[in-house]
Amino acid sequence: MSNSTPQVLREDVVAAQSRIFDQFGPFLRRTPVIKLTGQAVGLNCAEIWFKLEHLQVSGSFKARGILNRMLSNTIPDSGVIIASGGNAGIACAQAAKALGVICEVYVPELCPPAKQRKLAALGAKVVVGGAFYPQALRACIARRDATGALLVHAYDQPEVVAGAGTLALEIEDQAGIPDSVLVSVGGGGLIAGLVAGFEARVPVVALEPELAPTLYQARLQGQPTDVEVAGIAADSLGARRIGDIAWDLTQKWVHTSLLVSDEAIRTAQLWLWREMKLAVEPAAALPLAALQCGAYVPRPDEKTCLIVCGANIDPSSLS
Amino acid sequence: MSNSTPQVLREDVVAAQSRIFDQFGPFLRRTPVIKLTGQAVGLNCAEIWFKLEHLQVSGSFKARGILNRMLSNTIPDSGVIIASGGNAGIACAQAAKALGVICEVYVPELCPPAKQRKLAALGAKVVVGGAFYPQALRACIARRDATGALLVHAYDQPEVVAGAGTLALEIEDQAGIPDSVLVSVGGGGLIAGLVAGFEARVPVVALEPELAPTLYQARLQGQPTDVEVAGIAADSLGARRIGDIAWDLTQKWVHTSLLVSDEAIRTAQLWLWREMKLAVEPAAALPLAALQCGAYVPRPDEKTCLIVCGANIDPSSLS
Repeated sequence: MSNSTPQVLREDVVAAQSRIFDQFGPFLRRTPVIKLTGQAVGLNCAEIWFKLEHLQVSGSFKARGILNRMLSNTIPDSGVIIASGGNAGIACAQAAKALGVICEVYVPELCPPAKQRKLAALGAKVVVGGAFYPQALRACIARRDATGALLVHAYDQPEVVAGAGTLALEIEDQAGIPDSVLVSVGGGGLIAGLVAGFEARVPVVALEPELAPTLYQARLQGQPTDVEVAGIAADSLGARRIGDIAWDLTQKWVHTSLLVSDEAIRTAQLWLWREMKLAVEPAAALPLAALQCGAYVPRPDEKTCLIVCGANIDPSSLS
Repeated sequence: MSNSTPQVLREDVVAAQSRIFDQFGPFLRRTPVIKLTGQAVGLNCAEIWFKLEHLQVSGSFKARGILNRMLSNTIPDSGVIIASGGNAGIACAQAAKALGVICEVYVPELCPPAKQRKLAALGAKVVVGGAFYPQALRACIARRDATGALLVHAYDQPEVVAGAGTLALEIEDQAGIPDSVLVSVGGGGLIAGLVAGFEARVPVVALEPELAPTLYQARLQGQPTDVEVAGIAADSLGARRIGDIAWDLTQKWVHTSLLVSDEAIRTAQLWLWREMKLAVEPAAALPLAALQCGAYVPRPDEKTCLIVCGANIDPSSLS
């Protein structure tokens, strides 16, 4: 583990859970778990658990970590500031609204007008900060330096990771200890939180689209590296480089990193709507896709938990 | 209570629960409950519970009662037969497929081609049986008389009602006893099952669209009566007359029957998608609509449970 990267431990996750649920409970939701037999899903394993985190406030898991970041720090009059064109921006704007603080969101140019309007409707000041995410992040940091606002990172801050990790504690509390957890990876905040929370209790499997392999490529190279990102899930898994915290934590705890095709992701996304009436974004369908396409093969007696992580889509994409 | 109408008692509901979950568990789902504070929903009451029954197999609660009807009877080689252009037809076709029996579905002419294709894709033989539901039901019964198939009624059979009532037992088991339950009414199979299951434990409030008031009009008239049905939820709440079993049971147990405008239903349906990422059909939005529009005003200390009953929609209707 590099010396400069902040550590996130299970005790930080436990503290985050108290902080965000005890201090600001009504804002967040304990999202439900559905347990089905493998047979009911057409798979040869004992049980499939669906952790329905797409029903979280803001439509994704991001609200947990971002709220933890905000509640762990004194928020200045200039409020909070984030660079994100996606779920993190929505979660930040919604949490800021709930806390009654100013929020600025720096988005890349490719952020669709509908998403910019949604952010504005949540009360955020939306600024187009450059062509792509790295430019938007640079502009965001320059603005933070000028205003003193609290910077919220979409995935690579210890409080953000610890907040995401509360999902692990919640699953244990609601449903027990599964034999494995399958989760999609973008910048890595979610998987980092999960492994910080689970430690060695549960093997966590990292899943990425073939067209957005930030962790997979980093593992091949032996270090975080910039990758090209594209494809069906680039909207939410489009980070170009795995976060430093996620890199350290996944190197320690994650043994399996797999890629899934866009076709398999789309098939799983449509299956979740047709068979379960779960309307989710492509990133949330990766765990089921990995099972359905055989990228991950559970044991016949295995109970595996799929993290259904977000639902910020246009529902007509499911028609 | 009329002498000719079969009774459904709590013991029948308890027996149905054992039958459908113990004998054929993997087919059905225990659907989750989400509990939010009233504040989180913008309402002045203690808690709102959302029973997410739209995540049931077949996309609605209908699977419970129809499976109970099938498992309570010997199914002849000619299989099962039902008249329905909606959720009951889908549930019947899906249950018949799971049980490996033949299924014929008589639909009215207004049943959209997409729904007919869906039924056929589930293996059902689809027959257009007349202009409207009553004609389709008559044709269905004539066919049953010829083939000896097991007739499944969409809402007015004791096994169908008792199966729907398993929702009441499941809510008690998962979440405890709420102070009230809000549910939409079409033919009345769901509300009949709920009150058979809850008896006097919980007041159940009947909700109907202004444009499809089968129970409301029957209560005004003092007996079941044919009504005109139209509007946003006619697809699933379009029965023209309350079922006899539902009439008897609601006369005994239901004290409050309310109407809700299509506009309020649509507002609630869009709210459920925007704020909770629940993609549901209009009928499933009636309980929230009744709260949001003030048709039903809970006490400040009340814990009220909303039955989210179905999700058989084209998702583009939420865009």
